Amino acid sequence: MLPETVRIREVGPRDGFQNEPETIATEAKVRLIEMLGAAGLKRLEVTSFVRPEVIPQLADADEVLRQVHLPADADVTVLIPNERGLERALTLREHFSEVNCFLSASETHNLHNVNRSIEESLAGLERVIDRARDDGLRAEGVISTSFGCPYEGEVPPGRVFAIAERLIDAGASEIAFGDTTGMANPVQVRRFFAEARCVLDDRVELTAHFHNTRGQGLANVLAALEAGCSSFESSFGELGGCPVPPGATGNIATEDLVSMLHEMGITTRVNLPALLAASAAAREALGRPLGSHTLVAGPIVWGARS
Amino acid sequence: MLPETVRIREVGPRDGFQNEPETIATEAKVRLIEMLGAAGLKRLEVTSFVRPEVIPQLADADEVLRQVHLPADADVTVLIPNERGLERALTLREHFSEVNCFLSASETHNLHNVNRSIEESLAGLERVIDRARDDGLRAEGVISTSFGCPYEGEVPPGRVFAIAERLIDAGASEIAFGDTTGMANPVQVRRFFAEARCVLDDRVELTAHFHNTRGQGLANVLAALEAGCSSFESSFGELGGCPVPPGATGNIATEDLVSMLHEMGITTRVNLPALLAASAAAREALGRPLGSHTLVAGPIVWGARS
Repeated sequence: MLPETVRIREVGPRDGFQNEPETIATEAKVRLIEMLGAAGLKRLEVTSFVRPEVIPQLADADEVLRQVHLPADADVTVLIPNERGLERALTLREHFSEVNCFLSASETHNLHNVNRSIEESLAGLERVIDRARDDGLRAEGVISTSFGCPYEGEVPPGRVFAIAERLIDAGASEIAFGDTTGMANPVQVRRFFAEARCVLDDRVELTAHFHNTRGQGLANVLAALEAGCSSFESSFGELGGCPVPPGATGNIATEDLVSMLHEMGITTRVNLPALLAASAAAREALGRPLGSHTLVAGPIVWGARS
Repeated sequence: MLPETVRIREVGPRDGFQNEPETIATEAKVRLIEMLGAAGLKRLEVTSFVRPEVIPQLADADEVLRQVHLPADADVTVLIPNERGLERALTLREHFSEVNCFLSASETHNLHNVNRSIEESLAGLERVIDRARDDGLRAEGVISTSFGCPYEGEVPPGRVFAIAERLIDAGASEIAFGDTTGMANPVQVRRFFAEARCVLDDRVELTAHFHNTRGQGLANVLAALEAGCSSFESSFGELGGCPVPPGATGNIATEDLVSMLHEMGITTRVNLPALLAASAAAREALGRPLGSHTLVAGPIVWGARS
């Protein structure tokens, strides 16, 4: 039984803009984010409070948050790497409603990514989530390499669920499971989400974050839908994602996801032509072809042409 | 219940090579086809007997068939547009075992593609199949735009099945349903194949030919598998496919299909690294990046890295 409606969090403004070799001008970012909001995306991860010397592409987090205007019913998420990041973000508290905290389910990947053990990451994120909740913010925990790790290989689902439970106990309202380097397959995904729904509490929202690394991103979406998952993260234009292996594509494209869901009769509140206009504007701003398929092919037209 | 094993027909040497703006040298074609055979692909559509002035890229059909050496258990398919094409092909009868005959399920697309009505196409193909069977050849019928037409929009499944029945009655052993411009979605595909298995006779093999036009190719494969389909057509490197809309990608990449199937525990007899070597050789021969994802990302490695 497929869900009737799906929630989509657009992560391109953070995950995509962060991975561009050239920093995008604040003005262009704001314009693209507002186009995404106008296209009906109700969840937008707009920037990250990482240290500017680590990710200079997002050094304008404060400015982006201050300048961007989104519909009142849109939820604005910022990515928070640690307590220092949260302190910085809280000076702009009125400009967002949700924090996204992340770690990996694999020790090696977590060490490569944030130079901490999983236990060290968890201890820090528990404090971040606690503090964010005190400030009335909703907290999302993202667990990378949930379906496999490029360094360690298999990642037991039990380990992923144990990490999820720690984040839920700390106060996370939503857990996103990331297929960071595109190792998940539909059989595994269906089993994973069926098990996750059993093991984890009903009070938490379960979200799938798939990558299209080996072309199987939307097949994994279908498997997750079939297992009852109705919340997804994706990136307009297929921007961003993990650059491992080198040259690989990352996130599934929001427009490809929306096109498939709408064709399947599942609602999203997203206006596909308006979303494609945002991706086309990103392509123009970046001056290069993007990985999105629907951006090239255009939406499906079912009526007869005259 | 998913099938344990899947049959794949590699269509790149015909569908891919035909769509390249520059004609590929016969020698290079033969080498690539033999690499595909060595990779374990047991069904290969190697060329087409269309008129050389219409498709000069395949004007060397005779030479390719004569020169290529494939394992004894590989089935060689040639595409036959009409009776004149079959006459030409039959002079090389010992070099192939199967003919592929095609038409569209949409009048407008068929007219655009072969300048005939569906009825005219069917009458001709019935004679082709009959004659091919007399010569001990297996016949496959491919029905384009089975899931939607870029000119007419919706294509009723009943119309597709009626065409399939005509081809089966004429002696076709296999019917492939083509999603020529990538309009199919997983809900539609699952319903279509469930119905096809009911309506069409058990004596015929049902094959799915999906395109990745809007990124949903492998999701449609998953839906077809779930509906009991265990035969697919694909193209190494993601070569070829319909150039409508302009710039859109076409066929699903064989290596992306094989990677997903193997990860799901479904066997194919294909050696993925050897297949990737063939696609890498095609990329080098063509001197441009290809649409295949796994060719860029490489196969999934599940063991821990030292």
